[in-house]
Order: sequence, then C-alpha cells, then structure tokens
Amino acid sequence: MKELEERIAREGTVKPGNVLKVDAFLNHQCDVALFNAMGAAWAEHFAGKTITKILTIEASGIGIACIAAQHFGDVPVVFAKKAQSINLDGDQYVTRVFSFTKQKEFPVIVSKKFLNAGDHILIIDDFLANGQALAGLIELCEDAGATVEGIGIAIEKGFQGGGDGLRAEGYDLDSLAIIDSMDAETGTVAFRA
Amino acid sequence: MKELEERIAREGTVKPGNVLKVDAFLNHQCDVALFNAMGAAWAEHFAGKTITKILTIEASGIGIACIAAQHFGDVPVVFAKKAQSINLDGDQYVTRVFSFTKQKEFPVIVSKKFLNAGDHILIIDDFLANGQALAGLIELCEDAGATVEGIGIAIEKGFQGGGDGLRAEGYDLDSLAIIDSMDAETGTVAFRA
Repeated sequence: MKELEERIAREGTVKPGNVLKVDAFLNHQCDVALFNAMGAAWAEHFAGKTITKILTIEASGIGIACIAAQHFGDVPVVFAKKAQSINLDGDQYVTRVFSFTKQKEFPVIVSKKFLNAGDHILIIDDFLANGQALAGLIELCEDAGATVEGIGIAIEKGFQGGGDGLRAEGYDLDSLAIIDSMDAETGTVAFRA
Repeated sequence: MKELEERIAREGTVKPGNVLKVDAFLNHQCDVALFNAMGAAWAEHFAGKTITKILTIEASGIGIACIAAQHFGDVPVVFAKKAQSINLDGDQYVTRVFSFTKQKEFPVIVSKKFLNAGDHILIIDDFLANGQALAGLIELCEDAGATVEGIGIAIEKGFQGGGDGLRAEGYDLDSLAIIDSMDAETGTVAFRA
C-alpha cells in the first residue's frame, strides 16, 4: 500500500537491532485517516470472504482493528489481553508466546464468550516480525474451533520470516507494507516489490 | 446517553467490590457502532471547542478514542503507555498513578514529541472511578503546556467521586453514563438522572 510505505519512508525511524519506530502515526500517535485507508485496503483484499469478527491483541492493534471493522460492516472487534485482570473472569482461551522485542514470555488471553466455533475471524495487528503473537492468536482461534479467514498486517518485517511461514502454511495474509531490509546507519528502508 | 445506559443494563454484570463488567461491548469485545454513537455524543457536547488532539491511555481507551476522532475531523489520537518499551525513546512526559482496581502503581508515559504547548486536548477514556489515571493524563498535559479542553468518559462510577472532583476543579467532563449505585446481589445498576 503506497500511502503506508510513503509514511514509513518519511516518518519512520530505523534504530539499531532492526527496530523500526513508527510512533508518529501507528503505535503511539495514531493517524485515523491512514487507519481508514488501511481498513479499505483490507476490505478490498478480503472482499470474497465472510468475516464475522476481527481479533487483535492489545495495545497497538486495537485502534487499527476498530477503524478497520467499519469496512467490514461494523463486525465486533475482540482484543486479546496480555495479562490477567479483574475484568477477565470465567472460562478463557489462554496461550503463552515469547516476544523477541521484549525478550520475555507473555500470556495471550481471550474470554471463551467472545470466540466461538461459528466465527469467521480476520486477525489484524500493527506489526508482524517472527510471528509469535500471531501464532498465539491463531492457536486461540483453533482452540475455539473458529475459522481464520485471513490476517491483515500493517507492517511486516519480511526479513524475519514470520510472514512467509504463515503464507507457506496457507494463510491468506495481507501485509500492507513488507520490509525486505532496513539500515540504521543510513536510515533507509527497502520494501518488497 | 440512553443507548449506553441500555447496553450496561442489558449486558453489563455487577460483581462484588463495585466491579462492573462491560467486556461484551466496551473493553474486551468492542462494539464499533456503539463507539461511533459515543463519538457523536461527545462531538455534540464539545461542539464549541477547538480540539487538536485526543489523548487516551492504553489499552481500552484506544478503540473508543480512534473511533471518536472521526467525529473531530480525524485529529491525531495519542495513547499514553503504561510501561517503558523499546518503542519509547527520547524525551518523555512521565508520571506515576495508583490503580485501586489493580492495587498497584503504574507509570503513565507520553513522548514529548506528541504533546505540545499549542495542543488543545480532549481526553477520552472508557472508565472514570477515582480518577487517578485521568489525573495522570491531565498532569502530562500541564507538563507540556497543552490545554485540556474537555474530558469524555464512557462510564463514570459517580459514587467513587473522581468525576465530581474534576467538575469542582472546573473541567468540562462529559460522562455518557454515570452510575450512582450498583448492587452485586440483585445485579442492578442505578444511573444518575
């Protein structure tokens, strides 16, 4: 998606360790007009599919998923939680994933009430690198017997392999910007053609 | 706001300890159509004001704030973070607040880049009880020299006093549903008239 690539090139910052900061428009300050364009792009890509629910994970996925839901007939958005809370009770689907960014394991939790065998799920998230968080969300869908119809990602770090692994497994993955390489010294980002 | 009160009455659950669970539509599963109606209500209330930015706090505020931003000319949404992260660097506004719900202190962090002296801020959040989190967001705005034009809250626990304290301080606070009392035994919720 040209618009997102241009924003990354213009406002993104490459840091050592393959860290891409896009906090000016994606995951600290949020550009809602851009999120709407992203939602429209996913709606076009997944046009043939019946989507009954969008699943994402806190925190940065939530705004993108809520805006995108408007392009899928206002389907409910469920966000997985990364910690137990007083607001989570009853039966839950829970798995644990390892975050390479934060170098620690965290839980991925969804109340069973909100993920069902009849659901046709579109998973949405801001970033895909190794794919650990996504694997956790997919596992929860499988536990619930829900169908993963597709995965919409804003920025895929293509060089970290998580996305290509999911494609090889047969998932319909639509990443709006795929980064093939980036260079902290020059600050440049190369996108997959 | 009638629609929100009806949803709370129909789908909310009162738990011992003055806990109101609204995870079916507000803070685990999100009803985007309801969020749009909430955004429209705030836009009506704050119609006379110039809002340049919406400030909220992760995680449950993000979806509500992003949808609401569409009713304020797609102004940027900034969400404060509750933990340090690899994605947060550079100068930050930081304060610490105490959560009665979680019985622990946590940081409230916004990068200085995204909160400025010229900003006219609408603060949005899902819940207001004692008002600790809000006090933290207001403090960050003051640190930045930004003007807090108003505060939009979905559900205010009126009996916990945080909201009335902010009104007494002169803040323009628009809570869409104010709960005067609730009863875990009968499951009933009484709204302020």
